[in-house]
Amino acid sequence: MTKIKTVGYAASGALIGGKTLEPYQFERNEPKPNEVLIDVLYCGVCHSDIHQVNNDWKNTIYPCVPGHEVVGKVIATGSAVTKFSTGDIVGVGCMIDSCQHCEPCQENEEQFCEGPHGQTMTYNGYWKPDPEFNTFGGYSNTLVANEKFVMNIPNSLELSAVAPILCAGVTTYSPLKRWGVTAGDNVAVVGIGGLGHMGVKIARAMGATVTAITTKDSKGPAALSIGADEILNSTDEVAIEAHANKFDYILVTIPEAFDVNDYIPLIKRRGALVTVGLLGPYDAPTNNMDVAKFCVTVGGSMIGGTAETQEVLDFCAEHNILPDVELIDIKDINDAFDKIKDEEVRFRYVIDMATLKNEPELTE
Amino acid sequence: MTKIKTVGYAASGALIGGKTLEPYQFERNEPKPNEVLIDVLYCGVCHSDIHQVNNDWKNTIYPCVPGHEVVGKVIATGSAVTKFSTGDIVGVGCMIDSCQHCEPCQENEEQFCEGPHGQTMTYNGYWKPDPEFNTFGGYSNTLVANEKFVMNIPNSLELSAVAPILCAGVTTYSPLKRWGVTAGDNVAVVGIGGLGHMGVKIARAMGATVTAITTKDSKGPAALSIGADEILNSTDEVAIEAHANKFDYILVTIPEAFDVNDYIPLIKRRGALVTVGLLGPYDAPTNNMDVAKFCVTVGGSMIGGTAETQEVLDFCAEHNILPDVELIDIKDINDAFDKIKDEEVRFRYVIDMATLKNEPELTE
Repeated sequence: MTKIKTVGYAASGALIGGKTLEPYQFERNEPKPNEVLIDVLYCGVCHSDIHQVNNDWKNTIYPCVPGHEVVGKVIATGSAVTKFSTGDIVGVGCMIDSCQHCEPCQENEEQFCEGPHGQTMTYNGYWKPDPEFNTFGGYSNTLVANEKFVMNIPNSLELSAVAPILCAGVTTYSPLKRWGVTAGDNVAVVGIGGLGHMGVKIARAMGATVTAITTKDSKGPAALSIGADEILNSTDEVAIEAHANKFDYILVTIPEAFDVNDYIPLIKRRGALVTVGLLGPYDAPTNNMDVAKFCVTVGGSMIGGTAETQEVLDFCAEHNILPDVELIDIKDINDAFDKIKDEEVRFRYVIDMATLKNEPELTE
Repeated sequence: MTKIKTVGYAASGALIGGKTLEPYQFERNEPKPNEVLIDVLYCGVCHSDIHQVNNDWKNTIYPCVPGHEVVGKVIATGSAVTKFSTGDIVGVGCMIDSCQHCEPCQENEEQFCEGPHGQTMTYNGYWKPDPEFNTFGGYSNTLVANEKFVMNIPNSLELSAVAPILCAGVTTYSPLKRWGVTAGDNVAVVGIGGLGHMGVKIARAMGATVTAITTKDSKGPAALSIGADEILNSTDEVAIEAHANKFDYILVTIPEAFDVNDYIPLIKRRGALVTVGLLGPYDAPTNNMDVAKFCVTVGGSMIGGTAETQEVLDFCAEHNILPDVELIDIKDINDAFDKIKDEEVRFRYVIDMATLKNEPELTE
């Protein structure tokens, strides 16, 4: 099988748990009949890329090429592809394939794939029967994905900003949509970073009154500028107390362990809280007295399937929503990781993949 | 104001945190214009009566006359009462009054009353402005309640068995109804006691396939006899593993702290678990990794308002459901408390209030 020479940035195998991404050359298999080869133009930088590179989930296979908010142009299609043609502008999110036969796959909820090997993640997507198999993500100049996992990018969306919709967008859209958020609802978004700022924009577009909850007053002006109706500093006990039972829905996007009991008293009767992303245990046992007293639910959610991913792209086009991004050069990726951890980004870094060409180590 | 001489059983003020109920005489105010005076015929024994008598929630006012599953006959009505006449057979659950003006009260969800003093519980229902005010429950021969909180008992329901529907029934019916349990759903009920056995019966009547989860194999035959399709012993790790992601809904009725992480892996994608009753913190922090991975919710629920309480009575009549009860003499109440704690009851004790007449201390 012909291989496709690819260049990108990877955390090296020599650095288990290390944090430094470096230029890396590798080969991809050429597209199978139902796959599409993409020339990557932009790739968003997700907080989970940092977790994965640092092996926080104890499942990282090195070398690790992160990146699951991918926007690019179709440059080749497998013989059975019907959805795309060369030249189409497309996006790929967190998955590139799945069994496509199980009940969740039939329902386009491939994140729950029950096939023998589960869904294939866009990167670090090892395939259990073959311990050497791994997938490499969008911090590179090419990507190959099954056409079902390749999304149409609506024309009206500015291409350099659209990438974060493919993970941050669908991850926040999915619970907000399932709750049925509508005009008149009070929604709080906790954590105003890459995911949170999309949560604010989407909830607002659904008609809700949106409160941005943060520990940093410095994020206030930016949060108001993206559409939050109100800022609430979670360290201000008096202000928190004044919001008891106020919110129909609370979307928590904090990227590390926290005490969920701090937020439960803010939920209105029969309301809901959801923590998105793959956190481990909360900092303390949930006090079910508070949960039961107002009959609330405390849930979790992660990404979305192919149907919801296309849906959020179309929703953003319809409502003129775009992520607020800062374009970066691929050589600044390690610095970007540090700034994300320090909450300095407003609100998502997107790598301009054209800058890969500037890497002397990658041009032969 | 004329007072109504009443006899009952109370935990004495001398026994703070004590467990012994003794004969007790007291007076009730006669019905206000919108209240009804009831001759109590039967009163269910709820596990929360034990918690309250033992001051487990640190809010018990002694003397404490428990009892919030009350069935009786109307013997007097206030001048403004329109819903009932003398001789009507009625029921009273966990509340006897509320502000009736706030949004939850307007929605007949008085358990969330936002009035200045909140809802008045049937017993231990202190009224904040008056530290000496307290309510006495149904372990007595009379009860007075606002007519909105007095339920019609459908004729077809056997009177000596109906009382537990007023708390155990509505507490389990409310989440099952809100989930929209229907034919084809897999429902697990964890804890097969007073609440759990009603959960099994109601979920079954809604069309679900019902698995009874218990630690006691000895409860198996009884659980099957009340309609469970399957018994699962939660201490059997292999059997538990085989039920991973099987249940659309899990209703947990365990009356004491437990580790909710034990049950989360049993929930199907996008399914829900609810723990009913007023427990405090779980035994361990919820692992949100497990919650988010399958996008499930972990909620809490307690009792129900007047609308759902009448609804579950009518539902039970329509589906020929009755609690499985053992009638007891009021003098055996302390023994019954011990047997409930030891899980010996199948499945709910109901006090035959006619037996109060046998109390020499209470007959003058």
